[in-house]
Amino acid sequence: MRTGLNVEFLGAILAMVSLGSWAADVNDLTSAAPALEKYTQERLLGEVWKRPQLSARDRSITTVAALIARNQVNELPRYLRLALDSGVKPAELSEIITHLAFYSGWANATAAAAVTKDVFVERKISSNQLAPAKPKLLEMSEAALKSEKEREVRVGQQFGAVSEGVVQYTTEVLFLDLWLRPDLSPRDRSLVTVSALIATGQVQQLGSHLSRAMDNGLTQSEASEVLTQLAFYAGWPNVFSALPIAKDVFEKRTK
Amino acid sequence: MRTGLNVEFLGAILAMVSLGSWAADVNDLTSAAPALEKYTQERLLGEVWKRPQLSARDRSITTVAALIARNQVNELPRYLRLALDSGVKPAELSEIITHLAFYSGWANATAAAAVTKDVFVERKISSNQLAPAKPKLLEMSEAALKSEKEREVRVGQQFGAVSEGVVQYTTEVLFLDLWLRPDLSPRDRSLVTVSALIATGQVQQLGSHLSRAMDNGLTQSEASEVLTQLAFYAGWPNVFSALPIAKDVFEKRTK
Amino acid sequence: MRTGLNVEFLGAILAMVSLGSWAADVNDLTSAAPALEKYTQERLLGEVWKRPQLSARDRSITTVAALIARNQVNELPRYLRLALDSGVKPAELSEIITHLAFYSGWANATAAAAVTKDVFVERKISSNQLAPAKPKLLEMSEAALKSEKEREVRVGQQFGAVSEGVVQYTTEVLFLDLWLRPDLSPRDRSLVTVSALIATGQVQQLGSHLSRAMDNGLTQSEASEVLTQLAFYAGWPNVFSALPIAKDVFEKRTK
Repeated sequence: MRTGLNVEFLGAILAMVSLGSWAADVNDLTSAAPALEKYTQERLLGEVWKRPQLSARDRSITTVAALIARNQVNELPRYLRLALDSGVKPAELSEIITHLAFYSGWANATAAAAVTKDVFVERKISSNQLAPAKPKLLEMSEAALKSEKEREVRVGQQFGAVSEGVVQYTTEVLFLDLWLRPDLSPRDRSLVTVSALIATGQVQQLGSHLSRAMDNGLTQSEASEVLTQLAFYAGWPNVFSALPIAKDVFEKRTK
Repeated sequence: MRTGLNVEFLGAILAMVSLGSWAADVNDLTSAAPALEKYTQERLLGEVWKRPQLSARDRSITTVAALIARNQVNELPRYLRLALDSGVKPAELSEIITHLAFYSGWANATAAAAVTKDVFVERKISSNQLAPAKPKLLEMSEAALKSEKEREVRVGQQFGAVSEGVVQYTTEVLFLDLWLRPDLSPRDRSLVTVSALIATGQVQQLGSHLSRAMDNGLTQSEASEVLTQLAFYAGWPNVFSALPIAKDVFEKRTK
Repeated sequence: MRTGLNVEFLGAILAMVSLGSWAADVNDLTSAAPALEKYTQERLLGEVWKRPQLSARDRSITTVAALIARNQVNELPRYLRLALDSGVKPAELSEIITHLAFYSGWANATAAAAVTKDVFVERKISSNQLAPAKPKLLEMSEAALKSEKEREVRVGQQFGAVSEGVVQYTTEVLFLDLWLRPDLSPRDRSLVTVSALIATGQVQQLGSHLSRAMDNGLTQSEASEVLTQLAFYAGWPNVFSALPIAKDVFEKRTK
């Protein structure tokens, strides 16, 4: 597994090296904040991205999700390229944007789409490589259906009288539609959701989504390293607000 | 009332159809995330904006407030046009921007002003259609004065020693000045404030402002639908963080 | 002290007057929201910036930190110029950006660097006026070392098993490196950190950082006025969420 990871990472590093846009920005950094350039090279690119606990592919997904959720489109192109070079498929990027329309707001997604379109053109990615608008949805197992039904009933009892619309769309559009779209795996959807929640300081929904992420196959070691990655991309305070919740989820699952 | 609503909504839809800018962005969406385009057409424009629980005018105000509070100026022009087409007056837009300088930060308002100015030019809206800088303020009823005095005393006791400046300006500039400016009704100011708080995840002040909104005439059914609208424009997690607070306010008021 | 302050403030006002860019934006404001222009002139520039509780230099640092943390780069150039005119050194701005990479996310810092570079060029600030990438770090006192060791142990026990990476980098890169860089004083680093936390509504880490700020020399009167300044630049709700925490810190320290 480590071997696969290193090969994958090598691809990512080659990609970084080849990106002319990094060089351009290096100039910005050295002309305004030389230390920031140093930390970027030595710590972020030189260390963090190489840590074996999380693949370059997953780091790309986490970072792209954080940037979209925080509406930081300026930095997005280079990380979209890096994502493509690290094995994230165009169809997956396409689904990440759609997913984040619901989890971080419509305007975040439309801004990301405008930027992503240009990267797709640059990389000669054609529309048949994207996720179709109306694919055959994943089938839910008996257990998944039961657990979704329970969620629906629970949330309906809690909030049905507060906002019928929110409750209805949560079931109809999110859990019985968006989450079942096949071009992004449930595990990766969870990774995107969890990254977006941490990156925007929305820790109230983090517990349930981190649990779901681990049910969907994200390991504790990966989740733990997502926090390290996001410390750099979303800032230390957002990650420190997430730590107690992650701790709680991890502890409950090992009992 | 429904009839009025439908006529109003028809205006909004016609406005949407005529907006060349939508078409341009549809291209972005289909080239990057076809599913996002589908959800935009089928769910957001095709369903949510047509739900009768909230007028197109109110939906426009909520959406514009959310975009300004989240500093998403890219999407703002089309929603400003939609607001004008849905019956929001230029003077009201002008006041919404000023109001949000205080409730979401000065730079959000100045960024919004730059974009709004261009839409006003495009629509040939002249400066005498805007809200004047120094209008005659609304008069406060005996009851309103009393309740404001109570608020002032309470907040002064709580926080006067912590930040005298904040406490002083809250009374002097917010509640005895900004909120009394006549070109945006107290009910609409409340709608703007509540939308901005939910859209930026600032739920700590939501309870008191939602109560105030309902005192100012926002119905429970409208408030409930504001949450549905914002699920799409501010993301599901922000709305789920707001739901328990809305529930609490609704329940206290029906007791 | 007041005299020094007034002279300093005079410099800042002269700087404002000379800024062509203000005039340009005044036009935006009057064409979209005349009242916003009035409040800007009468309250914000005419009153708040002149209050003696906080120097124009500190107000600039707070405002620049808030804008970077909120990713509002449009407004940044004018406040960078104002900071330079108020006595903030280029090397300090350079360190503020680097500091905020860690405290508000990498993309906030790189976006700020791109804008700052242009202001430095405009002001003919050469690279030897910036903070070097690898300076000799400040030495820690016996007491500081002991207290840092305690922090490390405490956080390690709390979160070491949750995210080893975050815990390791917090010690290694933040407290034993970044905070010891000499071109921004610990007191000013704290001012930047506290301003960024309040400006982005991240109040969970505010208590410990406000305490640290006061240990580093920020007075209660200054901290209190930072809240007033940020009410305008980050919006009232963020400041009201910070008030109870500031109250708590102030009260504990006077016991």
